[in-house]
Amino acid sequence: MPELRQNFFTKEWVIIATERAKRPKELARQQPPKALASFVASCPFCPGNEDKTPPEVLRVPAGGTTPWQVRVIPNKFSALAGDAQPTRTIHRSRRSMGGFGVHEVIVETPDHSHTTALLDDAHVTNVLRAYKSRYDELSLDPRIAHITIFKNHGLDAGTSLEHPHSQLIATPVISSQVRGRFQTALQHYDEFGECMFCQVINEEMAEEDRIVLTTEHFVVMEPFASATPFATHIYPRRHMANFGDISGAEMTDLARTLRKVLAKLYHGLGDPDFNYTLRSAPAELHGVKYFHWYVSVIPRLTRVAGFELGSGMFINTVPPESAAEFLRNVKAEAAAGAGGQ
Amino acid sequence: MPELRQNFFTKEWVIIATERAKRPKELARQQPPKALASFVASCPFCPGNEDKTPPEVLRVPAGGTTPWQVRVIPNKFSALAGDAQPTRTIHRSRRSMGGFGVHEVIVETPDHSHTTALLDDAHVTNVLRAYKSRYDELSLDPRIAHITIFKNHGLDAGTSLEHPHSQLIATPVISSQVRGRFQTALQHYDEFGECMFCQVINEEMAEEDRIVLTTEHFVVMEPFASATPFATHIYPRRHMANFGDISGAEMTDLARTLRKVLAKLYHGLGDPDFNYTLRSAPAELHGVKYFHWYVSVIPRLTRVAGFELGSGMFINTVPPESAAEFLRNVKAEAAAGAGGQ
Repeated sequence: MPELRQNFFTKEWVIIATERAKRPKELARQQPPKALASFVASCPFCPGNEDKTPPEVLRVPAGGTTPWQVRVIPNKFSALAGDAQPTRTIHRSRRSMGGFGVHEVIVETPDHSHTTALLDDAHVTNVLRAYKSRYDELSLDPRIAHITIFKNHGLDAGTSLEHPHSQLIATPVISSQVRGRFQTALQHYDEFGECMFCQVINEEMAEEDRIVLTTEHFVVMEPFASATPFATHIYPRRHMANFGDISGAEMTDLARTLRKVLAKLYHGLGDPDFNYTLRSAPAELHGVKYFHWYVSVIPRLTRVAGFELGSGMFINTVPPESAAEFLRNVKAEAAAGAGGQ
Repeated sequence: MPELRQNFFTKEWVIIATERAKRPKELARQQPPKALASFVASCPFCPGNEDKTPPEVLRVPAGGTTPWQVRVIPNKFSALAGDAQPTRTIHRSRRSMGGFGVHEVIVETPDHSHTTALLDDAHVTNVLRAYKSRYDELSLDPRIAHITIFKNHGLDAGTSLEHPHSQLIATPVISSQVRGRFQTALQHYDEFGECMFCQVINEEMAEEDRIVLTTEHFVVMEPFASATPFATHIYPRRHMANFGDISGAEMTDLARTLRKVLAKLYHGLGDPDFNYTLRSAPAELHGVKYFHWYVSVIPRLTRVAGFELGSGMFINTVPPESAAEFLRNVKAEAAAGAGGQ
């Protein structure tokens, strides 16, 4: 029998459609990952082509023969403009604002053929440190209300660029969707005196069914009301509203944990297209007791269709308990000889 | 310069990214529509294969040589079960409910090769009448809270079935996304004493920039804060909260209008994959003064990526004014000799 489940954080319903249930292997990519060259002369993110991008805002140097390990650059095709004025115009039903914002690209490695799942953990740590450095600096700008850090991997996840990269977009507004999450979390705190995320982390760790792995500082789970197959959340076990408050030891652990999650998807589902995004309270909500940051990893195995667009509800054909069991059993080691520097 | 715009109905922000602006032709499908056979022996929706589907719940008979014009059948791979109990279970953070619901398929024509854009208007009217008949009947079931009628056309819109069909899913809950729309509309009515949709219809008809076409009973527009390229709304000009309250003359006009919109997309953008969905107040909100039903047509020309998933905001690379101008200039006649019966 199918089941309806309600997301505790957003109150949104999803349909867990057991009649349409798919085995993980049915969702896996059938062909092996495309072999990429380590260097592509026309790729703007490959070493030697640094002048094809706007001047970099951050560089993590590398030892050895490569000129850098990680670079952060302004997006050449920025969705928002750093020199626009965030001035509002209200004319009856039409509300608009100058398109002020910051749009940056984090080039994760000089090697075109790398993929995060197979990098070494120290390298992933430096990618995350680059996120935090940019996040910390941009959080100081009073014109910026919200910072979204995300990665698109593969065509179905919205990118045609193969070179490993992630992005950051800072906006002068907070979307009503994200604002709604904070409001729901605040109401829960006011009613029950605890962070709703901490509550769920404790419950899920006791229940175990939806846990993929736990580390000293993080817990990885498939959400009870998971909207899409293999959607995976990585929560810090310590209560923390803002990504910027992560400690050094937690950062190292997060890098290892994120790399493991991506390796489980890579090996278990055949290098699926995926997005990940970092959901953090913004600077204006620094240190609040009711919100808890996390990383959301969304493999793009299915298509959003008319029902989802019309109803706001999703149909998930893989129960999160099955997804968690499957992922627990996939080895997460980096392939021998692949990745890393 | 890019612009941020706020959706008046949902208060959600979108980025109109002029730096990344795409001309309509860049988004159009480059290869011509795939030629389909009129009859495919293995297709469960083709005539003669009626026994491959569950027994039909509605049939619109046809004159001439075809056995029927439109059929409504239960979905063989139903996302929800008509015999499940909509009983709630609440265990701390885990909220679930038996997967009760109704999932039906509307087979729009016996001809496998048809496409709605090229059908004759009388035929489309019968498809819409089938929607209304099922909508009216299911609205009487007190276990049903919300009915979503939608169409998926093409792989990127979430269907692999070529035979023209649409679907209906009736759920025992209203999603928080949809509930949020009703709440916002109610607040607007309480504050200003008018339907926010009627206000926008009047403003847009006076402004003209985003209008695609108007008919006696309907107005077709690109929303001011359109989240995706060529998203198109069809509103009844008369205030009406529920699709079920449509008159006979309005139904004929809606069929002609919907067919014209789909034909403009078909001819202008090369038969793009698309979804449409009918957004109506549910039976429990019958006749309310604050909500206004409409049809939302979403061509699937771009991919949702990590920014959208993380921030809740969309980046739209085609300003709605450009999309409206483009669609106004595309001829909407059915191709000579194609479609119809």
